[in-house]
Amino acid sequence: MRRALELAARGPLTGGNPQVGCVLLDAGGAVVAEGWHRGAGTAHAEVDALSRLEDARGLTAVVTLEPCNHTGRTGPCSEALIAAGVARVVYAVSDPGHESAGGAARLREAGVEVIGGVLADEVRAFLHVWLTAVARHRPWVTVKWASTLDGRAAAADGTSQWITGTAARQRVHEQRAASDAILVGIGTVLADDPALTARGDGGELLAHQPIPVVVGERGVPATAAVRAHPAGLIETGSRDLEAILRELDARGIRRVYVEGGPTLASALIAAGLADEYAVYLAPVLLGGDRLAVGDLGIPTIADARRLRITSIEQLGDDLLVTARPIQGS
Amino acid sequence: MRRALELAARGPLTGGNPQVGCVLLDAGGAVVAEGWHRGAGTAHAEVDALSRLEDARGLTAVVTLEPCNHTGRTGPCSEALIAAGVARVVYAVSDPGHESAGGAARLREAGVEVIGGVLADEVRAFLHVWLTAVARHRPWVTVKWASTLDGRAAAADGTSQWITGTAARQRVHEQRAASDAILVGIGTVLADDPALTARGDGGELLAHQPIPVVVGERGVPATAAVRAHPAGLIETGSRDLEAILRELDARGIRRVYVEGGPTLASALIAAGLADEYAVYLAPVLLGGDRLAVGDLGIPTIADARRLRITSIEQLGDDLLVTARPIQGS
Repeated sequence: MRRALELAARGPLTGGNPQVGCVLLDAGGAVVAEGWHRGAGTAHAEVDALSRLEDARGLTAVVTLEPCNHTGRTGPCSEALIAAGVARVVYAVSDPGHESAGGAARLREAGVEVIGGVLADEVRAFLHVWLTAVARHRPWVTVKWASTLDGRAAAADGTSQWITGTAARQRVHEQRAASDAILVGIGTVLADDPALTARGDGGELLAHQPIPVVVGERGVPATAAVRAHPAGLIETGSRDLEAILRELDARGIRRVYVEGGPTLASALIAAGLADEYAVYLAPVLLGGDRLAVGDLGIPTIADARRLRITSIEQLGDDLLVTARPIQGS
Repeated sequence: MRRALELAARGPLTGGNPQVGCVLLDAGGAVVAEGWHRGAGTAHAEVDALSRLEDARGLTAVVTLEPCNHTGRTGPCSEALIAAGVARVVYAVSDPGHESAGGAARLREAGVEVIGGVLADEVRAFLHVWLTAVARHRPWVTVKWASTLDGRAAAADGTSQWITGTAARQRVHEQRAASDAILVGIGTVLADDPALTARGDGGELLAHQPIPVVVGERGVPATAAVRAHPAGLIETGSRDLEAILRELDARGIRRVYVEGGPTLASALIAAGLADEYAVYLAPVLLGGDRLAVGDLGIPTIADARRLRITSIEQLGDDLLVTARPIQGS
């Protein structure tokens, strides 16, 4: 299973499907084939592994996620395993998909031995973001902001280039590239005209581009830089965050990266829709009233949103503090 | 000299005088006596070392700071070394004091061999705060605040107990105890009635107590907790920060710890009087308008105050970011 997990990690972080790995073992426990999922529309890990062999009869399939029982762009893996004559299936985590679950039951029905829950905690941690998104029917939301040590996102005149240094800005591009969509408020589009592409440090476009999603009723100007985005553009025409996230979920968007501004970030936090925070802190003081986070509707300290810091990184002169909400606070 | 520096570090961090260490060596280079300064009013390091011997004739004195040439509460060390018949004096850093300098010249005049500048960089770094304070005729100013990750010092209703956890609060008490004075605005005294004592984690008073200094025209109420402070109380009756710091310098105060509120912190930062920042960041979000730092009169990003982070510590769930201004920003 540990090998299957290694294979899973070769697959893409983005896209509607999870990262899944599979190894096929013979009766002696030797690996005879390996496979992993390369993203929606391509073979699932089990089918990928089966495709490496002429004859899989009597083998054991070890797979990180319960084989699917659903015909999407590809056929159900449960049927492929049965058809190949696999004798035993060992998996870590059950499929949380409402259409795709039931693979284990289907396999058992066909006489295949099935063992679930092997290395489940580790695989669950690995798939945490995807599992959470699928279970909630909305994408995982990472709210990012860059601020000074005193919590400002810009100077009094609105200038903010550059609060953070190049290493921090490069990390932002990497985080964009690891997301399915970038959520941005129409106010920020109108004020800053951001391109919202994921670029390398030479300015080149990275391989994966998240789709920009503009929140708010006002329209995106015809000349806006974001209209030239290589991944297209979603104009929601709405401020209904829950509805927007449901819509993104339906499009197979699992990871959303929120790039501001303060109005959008604050609205998501206040609505309890932020799953993770990526806070870039620059050793800079600005004062003034251009805050990175606006009002959250919190009247008293007992109602504060309390977070758990999951990592702190130094990026050049800046810090990246990553945190997640503590449930119930 | 490295041994002299070790001895120096045994002396108190606080008080008007620097930490100084001295070793006396015989002709073969063996240590025959050691001494260090234990604070204003007690023997200087050289005199402390000399007091351990009957006869110091022909010895070499190795001392971290140029021997003083000044009669304060104790006599000049240069004369004590001459009287004792010391043959050679090796020191690291010149005495920056306007009254106390000239010891090296006086020693040479009396026929003592004098070598300065040995291990000077290391000793200068060790004495940086004291040397800076003496050179500027004002105390070293550490501006401390505790804020949420979004830069707030309190919730909308003013409640702030507790934003940070016990480990961070304990560190604040230790930083108080390592200071000569605590600067606090009258607004904070009136609003929060802080005791401003340095306490241990059992609530007991620590050995050294910094004197509270209240900034602002309004008087401290007769019933204010700070009136019971074991180190006394300085009411400045003024908002003239430069004049207040000059006055504290005249009292031998070298290290000031600024405990707020936002008005005082912002005024010191805006005036360029902050030498160091101790920023406690709690993984908490509050929103609202109770900011840890107020307006700094910075119109545009080019005028931002840029800092250099000197350390980042995790204290329980919180972070302590220590930073110093980058000169010229």
